[in-house]
Amino acid sequence: MEHYSSKLLKDAVDAFSSLPGIGKKTALRLVLHLLKQPREEVDFFADSLQKLRREVVYCDKCHNISDVALCHICNSSSRDASLVCVVENIRDVIAIENTSKFNGLYHVLGGIISPIDGIGPDDLNIASLINRIKEDNVKEVILALSTTIEGDTTNFYIFKKINMTGVKVTTIARGISVGDELEYADEVTLARSISNRTLYENSLSK
Amino acid sequence: MEHYSSKLLKDAVDAFSSLPGIGKKTALRLVLHLLKQPREEVDFFADSLQKLRREVVYCDKCHNISDVALCHICNSSSRDASLVCVVENIRDVIAIENTSKFNGLYHVLGGIISPIDGIGPDDLNIASLINRIKEDNVKEVILALSTTIEGDTTNFYIFKKINMTGVKVTTIARGISVGDELEYADEVTLARSISNRTLYENSLSK
Repeated sequence: MEHYSSKLLKDAVDAFSSLPGIGKKTALRLVLHLLKQPREEVDFFADSLQKLRREVVYCDKCHNISDVALCHICNSSSRDASLVCVVENIRDVIAIENTSKFNGLYHVLGGIISPIDGIGPDDLNIASLINRIKEDNVKEVILALSTTIEGDTTNFYIFKKINMTGVKVTTIARGISVGDELEYADEVTLARSISNRTLYENSLSK
Repeated sequence: MEHYSSKLLKDAVDAFSSLPGIGKKTALRLVLHLLKQPREEVDFFADSLQKLRREVVYCDKCHNISDVALCHICNSSSRDASLVCVVENIRDVIAIENTSKFNGLYHVLGGIISPIDGIGPDDLNIASLINRIKEDNVKEVILALSTTIEGDTTNFYIFKKINMTGVKVTTIARGISVGDELEYADEVTLARSISNRTLYENSLSK
């Protein structure tokens, strides 16, 4: 048991250490840092969390986090609405957006099918994906889920559902990371990178 | 630049990543975690920080963080008020309290003398320490500052000031950590642990 000389301090440390990956010592360090900041900064910190929790909305179309009913990606006229990239969560959207190399839209599933965790297709945004494909003239669906058994299951489930609609279904390339050494790659990745080899000319255009 | 689809999300991530040691990715993970928690929990989180920042007080006597004018340590009748341990900051108090082996009072300096950072004796709670020693019938002052040049300077400064009062001045023992192997200890620590060796009988009583 930790000994805090102040109930206020203890509450704040408890709050921080309830976050994933933050222990009591780190929490204390963060709280004492905030304590030294101007009051307005602490207010901004607290307000931004409460506002986010209260006012955040999810895009009606792609279920990405948003401030308005239709997110700025779905709402953009410069993006290719016929191309939809299916991802597990919001973090994946941010990761792909940060590459600045994808010009289509997204569809955030909100997880993957995982019977062990009690997550079935109906718990995810799959029905809305099927509707979108039918209604929005989508030509290609890119599956960008994780390469776990659950990811594969989800991929297959979606593929079966979409396949009837005649839309093209692709998955993102798996292979050796740029800059990585072959000898340290795992066998599955290495095998995948060989069987999915691309034309040399195409690798130049990146 | 990171691409967030929501201003609210961006504000919350910015708030978290302003904390020391928290990068954008960790901040995003923490914010998305909070977003999944019940609203009351996020409110508790935010409130505890604001309350701490607004209502926290520092003990009139030892300058430890406190909810009341005289902290519960200084106010305790079961503690030895003739023994004062001088520490740099609140974290040190918590660390020593966690050992449950110290029954005296504390004095939090709020830093150490560091000319390079523009911190002189007058920026620290040294004057109040001298007053305390004179007024409160203190018999022993334990210096528990860090073993840096700044720590040594501060120790010496306090020692010179206190020495006139005739109070006993000690420093905490420096030596090999319990469980550590001799061969990996640095020379200064090892030398210190030899020159400050204790009677074997005394080591048993711990």
